[in-house]
Amino acid sequence: MDTDFVARQQSRLLGELSDFLAIPSVSALPAHAADCRRAAEWLRAELSRLGCPAVQLIEGDGHPVVWAEGPAVPGRPTLLIYGHYDVQPPDPLDEWTSPPFEPTVRDGRLYARGAADDKGQVFCLLKAYEATLDADRRPPLNVHFIFEGEEECGGHVISDLLRAEPERTRADAALVCDMSYYAPGWPAVYTALRGLCYAEISVRTLERDLHSGTYGGVAPNAIETLVRILAGLKDESGEILIPKLYKSVEPPSKEELRVWKKLPFDKADFLRDEVTGQALTGRKEYSIFERVWALPTFEIHGIKGGFVGEGAKTVIPAQATAKVSLRLVPGQDYAKVGRLLERAVAALAPRWADVKVTLLHGGDPVQVDVDHPAFALLDEAFASVTGRKAVRVRAGGSIPIIPELGLTGAPVLLSGIGLPDDGLHSPNEKLDLAQLWSGIEIFGRFYELLAERGGPTAPPPA
Amino acid sequence: MDTDFVARQQSRLLGELSDFLAIPSVSALPAHAADCRRAAEWLRAELSRLGCPAVQLIEGDGHPVVWAEGPAVPGRPTLLIYGHYDVQPPDPLDEWTSPPFEPTVRDGRLYARGAADDKGQVFCLLKAYEATLDADRRPPLNVHFIFEGEEECGGHVISDLLRAEPERTRADAALVCDMSYYAPGWPAVYTALRGLCYAEISVRTLERDLHSGTYGGVAPNAIETLVRILAGLKDESGEILIPKLYKSVEPPSKEELRVWKKLPFDKADFLRDEVTGQALTGRKEYSIFERVWALPTFEIHGIKGGFVGEGAKTVIPAQATAKVSLRLVPGQDYAKVGRLLERAVAALAPRWADVKVTLLHGGDPVQVDVDHPAFALLDEAFASVTGRKAVRVRAGGSIPIIPELGLTGAPVLLSGIGLPDDGLHSPNEKLDLAQLWSGIEIFGRFYELLAERGGPTAPPPA
Repeated sequence: MDTDFVARQQSRLLGELSDFLAIPSVSALPAHAADCRRAAEWLRAELSRLGCPAVQLIEGDGHPVVWAEGPAVPGRPTLLIYGHYDVQPPDPLDEWTSPPFEPTVRDGRLYARGAADDKGQVFCLLKAYEATLDADRRPPLNVHFIFEGEEECGGHVISDLLRAEPERTRADAALVCDMSYYAPGWPAVYTALRGLCYAEISVRTLERDLHSGTYGGVAPNAIETLVRILAGLKDESGEILIPKLYKSVEPPSKEELRVWKKLPFDKADFLRDEVTGQALTGRKEYSIFERVWALPTFEIHGIKGGFVGEGAKTVIPAQATAKVSLRLVPGQDYAKVGRLLERAVAALAPRWADVKVTLLHGGDPVQVDVDHPAFALLDEAFASVTGRKAVRVRAGGSIPIIPELGLTGAPVLLSGIGLPDDGLHSPNEKLDLAQLWSGIEIFGRFYELLAERGGPTAPPPA
Repeated sequence: MDTDFVARQQSRLLGELSDFLAIPSVSALPAHAADCRRAAEWLRAELSRLGCPAVQLIEGDGHPVVWAEGPAVPGRPTLLIYGHYDVQPPDPLDEWTSPPFEPTVRDGRLYARGAADDKGQVFCLLKAYEATLDADRRPPLNVHFIFEGEEECGGHVISDLLRAEPERTRADAALVCDMSYYAPGWPAVYTALRGLCYAEISVRTLERDLHSGTYGGVAPNAIETLVRILAGLKDESGEILIPKLYKSVEPPSKEELRVWKKLPFDKADFLRDEVTGQALTGRKEYSIFERVWALPTFEIHGIKGGFVGEGAKTVIPAQATAKVSLRLVPGQDYAKVGRLLERAVAALAPRWADVKVTLLHGGDPVQVDVDHPAFALLDEAFASVTGRKAVRVRAGGSIPIIPELGLTGAPVLLSGIGLPDDGLHSPNEKLDLAQLWSGIEIFGRFYELLAERGGPTAPPPA
């Protein structure tokens, strides 16, 4: 590996990453479909430049999957690298200090939508690959790249692809760099991710909005009805009131609980700097780690209905809608939870309302067996650069495709170079440049360790 | 009165009214301030054309009040005519069959925002006045016109004016034509109106939106907090849970309840044609008339928060807002009710949220003494055209200025030519043209009856 790679080329690297981040590849918004394609094309060009023959854009019912294979290195293991080039919508726009798609460096941090989630991390893995190319531009091992454009919107182009061609996941290890350090100086690998069940609940009580004077007292109000249903799905203590929801939840292992208890954690800092709130919520009988890593949640993401313009309008609204989701933990199944949600909403729906639950997308929770030898190699790579092995934690978030990446038995290494205050999905998302530069070295080293000691080559695709 | 007035001039009248309705005088939306002024100017020109000397646009902190006095008719009584030239916002626009500010006749009905509330009715009173002008264009009695532009938005230009110059309300009777028939063929006068207390409730739980995976389980969700507060303000049976709210409510009189029991009413028709819903809500221990006329209500008019775009975004929202109002009944006071609401919300606010109640506007409920002889004259006018006297009912709606129109003791006649299915505040608001044409005759006759038998002239303004 070229250990001076970063030192010599920081300004080129920063320019390239800024170009990638400037593409507003917001997968959830149809108006940005062409931008998503531009981001995929950016990756295609980059992978070609890095020497991958025949980079593919694989089309489906949505944004394309980018697939590439580095030059074959016989006798060496195969690493599958996953990432996503799509980003979350940037709103609320007025809370960004610099515009979300005009990458800007302030105090050693690069601010842009996607800086940490996940374009900056995809970029880190690509540059680590570039740094390990030899004088003939050959990598130390077989690397397959798969980058999707629908991680943030629940599309299924990648999962359709892997269902049709599961051999694409045949590898000695899969690396997913969409996560963060546990804390500055504390690299992490993840033993579990929560799953997701995302839905829209819509209520109609009238054919048309009515005058609240003339009909107030007898006409059913759609917002009020929706509000009462939502309030009936979770109580103030944080307990979700969907019957049978907790039944299949598997509690964390004793070993996990032991490790979590020893993690450095300052509740006051967490509340002030990360949550930016006045008090925490949730089930007090569980620790904070258990609440965010090992318990399901129910959140309302958005709500609208009636008159929300300036001033006052006295209508009884005919319809109202909310977007909600549940995070799921090992033991739970997102299709089953979707049915439990539908049933719970139906039970709360009064006779005066048409109430509809539309399941928008979801993914099962993930549990990773971190005993595979590849994890020790990743530890070694982290330790060589940061002085510390990766701590075993969980994540509250979800990457729906993870179970499918492990289809053919490759261990899935969930890790990353983000920091907890990166502001994923929030205004002013950022990536610390020091994390990027050290990350390129860490993952370059990991590729080399895996090349040397990563076990037998996976058999070639059938 | 020129009894052929309408028959000869329908097409001119329809053209004039359409011009008036085409002005989008939406008082609640700052972008339409110039349109409100155009509507006021339209009235100024019309009143001048009708022979009123020195029409005034009285300015204040909002949209102007239009004031005019017909030529003085010594020895005859004075009638004060009130109406409003502003209209409700037209949204949801996509539910209109023809655009709200392109007046369109279909099946004998004129569709436009403001057709019934209140421009069409203001127009009816002006044309009734025109029809009673003699060959020298002199009216049969003294008429003072006061038209405001803030009835729908809670502005206070008119109330500031009347507080400063209460003598403007000195009259033998005040006529407010902003109401509807009880049913087709059943003209009505109103013995009470509900008051209004309109407020915005806003909740902030975080400085910024958070990722629902990373922080779901411990971070307070602003929408969830708002939803729980709203659900805590009213139960599913329709009982409002604001402490002490019902304490001062005065029940309707036995005579009122007796009249209401005999009104023609078909609950199935009401539900299907007017409410356009599947079932009624509200307090089952009271009749429908009591629920809409004699009990306070709490309604949520609009709600917003978080991500409401297309697709899925997994944020924990930092803030959320709802617009709400209470309708008030005789015995209640809007300022006091505002304080009760603030207190109830504060009691429901959890420690993790900043919850703010902003009182936007309001008005006290109205009770009218319908024993004054002017009501018998209005009955006579109605009977002469429709064959039926005006039935005594209440209205669930509010006209905040009414108490102030009666400042100097003039009886306030609340009546109108609308029909219950006019769709006030809704898409496809309309006015039946047959109601307009007969209304011009009815009110022309009322002016003449009042001129002949309406008692002594009010003393001239001091």
